[in-house]
Amino acid sequence: MRGAVMHAPGNVEVVERPDPKILAPTDAIVRLSATCICGSDLWPWRGADEVRGPMPMGHEYVGVVEEVGDEVKAVKVGDFVVGSFFASDNTCEICRAGYQSRCKDAYLMGQEGTQADYARVPMADGTLVATPGTPDPDVVPSLLAASDVLGTGWFGAVAAEVGPGKTVVVVGDGAVGLLAVLAARQLGAERVVAMSRHESRQRLALELGATDIVTERGDDGAARVKELTDGYGAHSVVEAVGTQEAMLQALRCCRPGGHVSFVGVPHGVELQGDELFFSAVHLHGGPAPVRRFLPELVGLICERRIEPGKVFDLELPLEEAAEGYRAMDERRAVKVLLRP
Amino acid sequence: MRGAVMHAPGNVEVVERPDPKILAPTDAIVRLSATCICGSDLWPWRGADEVRGPMPMGHEYVGVVEEVGDEVKAVKVGDFVVGSFFASDNTCEICRAGYQSRCKDAYLMGQEGTQADYARVPMADGTLVATPGTPDPDVVPSLLAASDVLGTGWFGAVAAEVGPGKTVVVVGDGAVGLLAVLAARQLGAERVVAMSRHESRQRLALELGATDIVTERGDDGAARVKELTDGYGAHSVVEAVGTQEAMLQALRCCRPGGHVSFVGVPHGVELQGDELFFSAVHLHGGPAPVRRFLPELVGLICERRIEPGKVFDLELPLEEAAEGYRAMDERRAVKVLLRP
Repeated sequence: MRGAVMHAPGNVEVVERPDPKILAPTDAIVRLSATCICGSDLWPWRGADEVRGPMPMGHEYVGVVEEVGDEVKAVKVGDFVVGSFFASDNTCEICRAGYQSRCKDAYLMGQEGTQADYARVPMADGTLVATPGTPDPDVVPSLLAASDVLGTGWFGAVAAEVGPGKTVVVVGDGAVGLLAVLAARQLGAERVVAMSRHESRQRLALELGATDIVTERGDDGAARVKELTDGYGAHSVVEAVGTQEAMLQALRCCRPGGHVSFVGVPHGVELQGDELFFSAVHLHGGPAPVRRFLPELVGLICERRIEPGKVFDLELPLEEAAEGYRAMDERRAVKVLLRP
Repeated sequence: MRGAVMHAPGNVEVVERPDPKILAPTDAIVRLSATCICGSDLWPWRGADEVRGPMPMGHEYVGVVEEVGDEVKAVKVGDFVVGSFFASDNTCEICRAGYQSRCKDAYLMGQEGTQADYARVPMADGTLVATPGTPDPDVVPSLLAASDVLGTGWFGAVAAEVGPGKTVVVVGDGAVGLLAVLAARQLGAERVVAMSRHESRQRLALELGATDIVTERGDDGAARVKELTDGYGAHSVVEAVGTQEAMLQALRCCRPGGHVSFVGVPHGVELQGDELFFSAVHLHGGPAPVRRFLPELVGLICERRIEPGKVFDLELPLEEAAEGYRAMDERRAVKVLLRP
């Protein structure tokens, strides 16, 4: 099969890779209908994460079940499925508490590399969710978004305890941040402040449910949020970038007793204990347990109540994956969908 | 009146200080029945916090209302009262959300210095809670504990989402840690693990409700906690020290999706974003909003259902405050009660 690999920073190529096979009776093989490039794929592209190339790329996926192991019961051959970027058993104590991305046997789908024709999905029963029937083609991008960026933005909103009557700030206008805006509105937030300096992303944020745009950054941005909230700061803040600047901005936008979530993999982030202490915020982040939310999100998407697929503003054939990386790196695209 | 002041690290003296006066119509003057020395008073004593001497000392207090300003309604002259170590209006949005220690007008009682004969309490209506009648003398130490260490330990347990069926770890065997043990049992924890290497404190922890003692520290301690919890880690961890070692120990004792609280003022604590991210814990700390819990705690104490006063293992006349500091610094005493 074909699959994208990264040889070195800035160097992605679609090559012939071995077809995946059932390795355990709980595996499934999925023929991928769509896959995409993640903001986190840009870390190695930019040299911020080590590249032990050739490294298979991609961890987001939707497609049709092609084959299942003997013990798979929840999905069958021919089902259209969405899965989380972390495979999980969904039965251990950690999974049952809703933290499937930290399942005792959690398996990062990036190890399989889903920017490809096929993917092996371990622990299929605990990882995949089948859609009700075969989805219309226009819904597929939204289902693909559920695999990571929507699920991650949604977790960001839930972890920041978004709810009715609350003012929510979203730091970061990438796909995850934009979908945290969507999630915040769906979860009933009264006011959703998107922090963005890019006009096209501001427009998308407003379309997805933002009520306010703040263009200032850092402490100026935090000061602006305080002005909007009677001097108190926001109730809930979602940090969807992963840099030190974004994290401090998020903490400083939040009122004492409020909730800050962080869902971008932190790079070079260091928090001072005393600042955290006197901020008196709740802080919660981590790799999003997308599987917790998938059944609900698949429902909302198939009923056409949300359209997270809007974040895909560039679609390319899998063969042109490298151009997709360049477009996202240069911020010419918010998020790139790849068609195997 | 007499009051303790710190001139420099290691140098506390009881001197003549001006009698406090009503400065605002919302003030009360309290004649102190008992006061005490806090673990946080040891930071300047040890030179870890700056001393701009002579600095009035003390922020914990119980006593009898001596005088009130014209606008004070909730307490009256002659009432026996307990107050939080932070004065608060208890009416602003932050207070109403339960974060009185970060009230928009929060005032640290250490600025008044309650290791003294009298103290002015600003925002008396929002700060003080009167006991039902004059308490028996043997209950006074427990009421004094409610002013800070019990309230702080209790907040630690609440912030770590302690509850029925949960395993709770308490890092730190000072007065706050010991009272977090008490709080955890009161809040229904199934198992309460006290991490302590000191035999007398282990005994006190067991008396206050600990079910297990772990003597190992750091990563060894965390490994021991994992062993006790089927490899998952504790559901709830209270960090009650404030050092880097204690904070990392706390984080590493906790399971993904679990809750870590930190209630000791952090000194030199620096958290790496990626460790926090992949731990997937909830983290919440800050100066305890003792006022939130005071009505409940005063009730439990006056009904003799809890006896947090057990943490006072040395009682001295106010005049001998310096000896109290030495005893706590040298860990000869867990906590020192001073009688004005």
